[in-house]
Amino acid sequence: MTACAIGIDLGGTFIKAGVVNESGKIVTRTSVPTGVSDGAEAVVQRMAEAADQVRRDANVAWNGVGAVGIGSPGVLDLKGGTVLISPNLVCLQGTNLRGAVERSLGVEGLPVVLENDANAAAYGEKWAGAGSDVNTLIMFTLGTGIGGGIILDGRIWHGTHGFAGELGHMSIVADGAPCGCGNRGCVEAYASASAMVRRLREAIEAGAESSLGKRLDSGEPVEGKHVYEAAVAGDAAAQGIIEETGRFLGVAATNVIHIFNPELVLFAGGMTGAGDMLLNPIREEAEARTFEAAFQRARVAFAELGNDAGLIGAAGWALRTSETSAS
Amino acid sequence: MTACAIGIDLGGTFIKAGVVNESGKIVTRTSVPTGVSDGAEAVVQRMAEAADQVRRDANVAWNGVGAVGIGSPGVLDLKGGTVLISPNLVCLQGTNLRGAVERSLGVEGLPVVLENDANAAAYGEKWAGAGSDVNTLIMFTLGTGIGGGIILDGRIWHGTHGFAGELGHMSIVADGAPCGCGNRGCVEAYASASAMVRRLREAIEAGAESSLGKRLDSGEPVEGKHVYEAAVAGDAAAQGIIEETGRFLGVAATNVIHIFNPELVLFAGGMTGAGDMLLNPIREEAEARTFEAAFQRARVAFAELGNDAGLIGAAGWALRTSETSAS
Repeated sequence: MTACAIGIDLGGTFIKAGVVNESGKIVTRTSVPTGVSDGAEAVVQRMAEAADQVRRDANVAWNGVGAVGIGSPGVLDLKGGTVLISPNLVCLQGTNLRGAVERSLGVEGLPVVLENDANAAAYGEKWAGAGSDVNTLIMFTLGTGIGGGIILDGRIWHGTHGFAGELGHMSIVADGAPCGCGNRGCVEAYASASAMVRRLREAIEAGAESSLGKRLDSGEPVEGKHVYEAAVAGDAAAQGIIEETGRFLGVAATNVIHIFNPELVLFAGGMTGAGDMLLNPIREEAEARTFEAAFQRARVAFAELGNDAGLIGAAGWALRTSETSAS
Repeated sequence: MTACAIGIDLGGTFIKAGVVNESGKIVTRTSVPTGVSDGAEAVVQRMAEAADQVRRDANVAWNGVGAVGIGSPGVLDLKGGTVLISPNLVCLQGTNLRGAVERSLGVEGLPVVLENDANAAAYGEKWAGAGSDVNTLIMFTLGTGIGGGIILDGRIWHGTHGFAGELGHMSIVADGAPCGCGNRGCVEAYASASAMVRRLREAIEAGAESSLGKRLDSGEPVEGKHVYEAAVAGDAAAQGIIEETGRFLGVAATNVIHIFNPELVLFAGGMTGAGDMLLNPIREEAEARTFEAAFQRARVAFAELGNDAGLIGAAGWALRTSETSAS
């Protein structure tokens, strides 16, 4: 029997929840503040309430809900259901999040599945987004950091302990820029939103003209979207940074194509708003570097589900996992 | 029923064949010149004869042989059984090698399986070598080039079209040394035997003293083993190259640990004869760069089966594949 599922996308600022139907479409949704400072118990209760809310809004009884999936940032013990390390959700560190949500929901026999948010987003794209026609895809999520998700033969590759998919911490410049993680030359150290801002600042200090110069000088926050908005508006320095970012991401795409021979390499996250200005150099660089046979069979594209990918994927993966274990 | 299998390791110079028992041990073996210049038909016939030879030597009837596995270099169409591109076996390009060997053997119902040689070697280590206690391992094979094999949950990861595992063509220095493949900064461009010799030559040209200087000047061939033999004998320049090679391989190890979260990262090939002089810098560099939780759970080691890994793995994978499809 197909059933709907509930996805919960747990973020440092908002908890988003939605009922997702068997086609991967969100039927009802809500968003409530996470309220991290209120502590783990309050956050768990809000998650359960949000789930119940969207279920009622969708007019579905609990026995019509196949599973509940939680997408969470941080390092997770997926089998145990526990949050190990999560800088934006410190109050949850050490909490058995899956067990706590299960108890708070109080629905007997309802499978609750915890998943890493980047993996969930990649699965969402595979299920109902840019990858719905493929079985194997590798996804980079571009944000303040760079996350990754690996879908092999239709399933999330978690690695032996659930730590796989740290694609942002693949080093592509062995002796390159230091990364926040302690490694050097990570993709994240060159192509994350903060790395773009850093490189723009360096370019301006080296004499480049940019419409963002004043903003940077004033100490106002500059984010990735400011860089690509300036680029779209014709700022040559910002355009150069976007192009260069695309080239670094093209190297990363080449590496995952050589390693995995996937059908699809996806880039997701706010920075994809830069459009072809970012996608073209990614593709050009990857084409120039990758074995032809593998490149020709691998699509390089942007994700399609935007901020909904994590919620949809958490629901879909929970459904898939619970169906598999029931069969 | 467990059964033995026959492995055939097809190389540009020699065809090696062996009967491998259900524990992954070679029971009987032979090695015959490939004779590439005699053409595809002759090579195929020699492969079949070598297989029959080791079977007779082991006193096993054909109905006691579970499967025949062929490990071949080059780009292969694994599903179709055809050799697409193989620079050292040009005569076989376009040949349906699996079909040809099957016909030449003429044993009805006997499964014949074609596999990439680096994948076969990785599977051999998983079955009966350094990885017999793990399910997920990533192996780099260091030689003139650098090959790779990926074992996930006990199975070879082939990718969508059989091209996966090109770990030697992961770029770790985005704007680095050109690689034979057309990409830049590949692991192979820094850590293959030929890259080591190239870097030693550069060091000598830059003024370093080395016992290999004369040999390099004279135009005599210098191979990876000369570099590590000189290093073992106390040559400081050669030691520096080995150390640096280890550091590049450590970066590569970090990348695959971050990507796959494997239990084991293996290095195989002649260069592992350098021992701890190579292994220590690999481990140190990987430890310094990798997330602690993932590094602590990933062993970084040398392979154990040496030149037998490909033969053993080809036999084992053929057995596993044919058992799976029969069940």
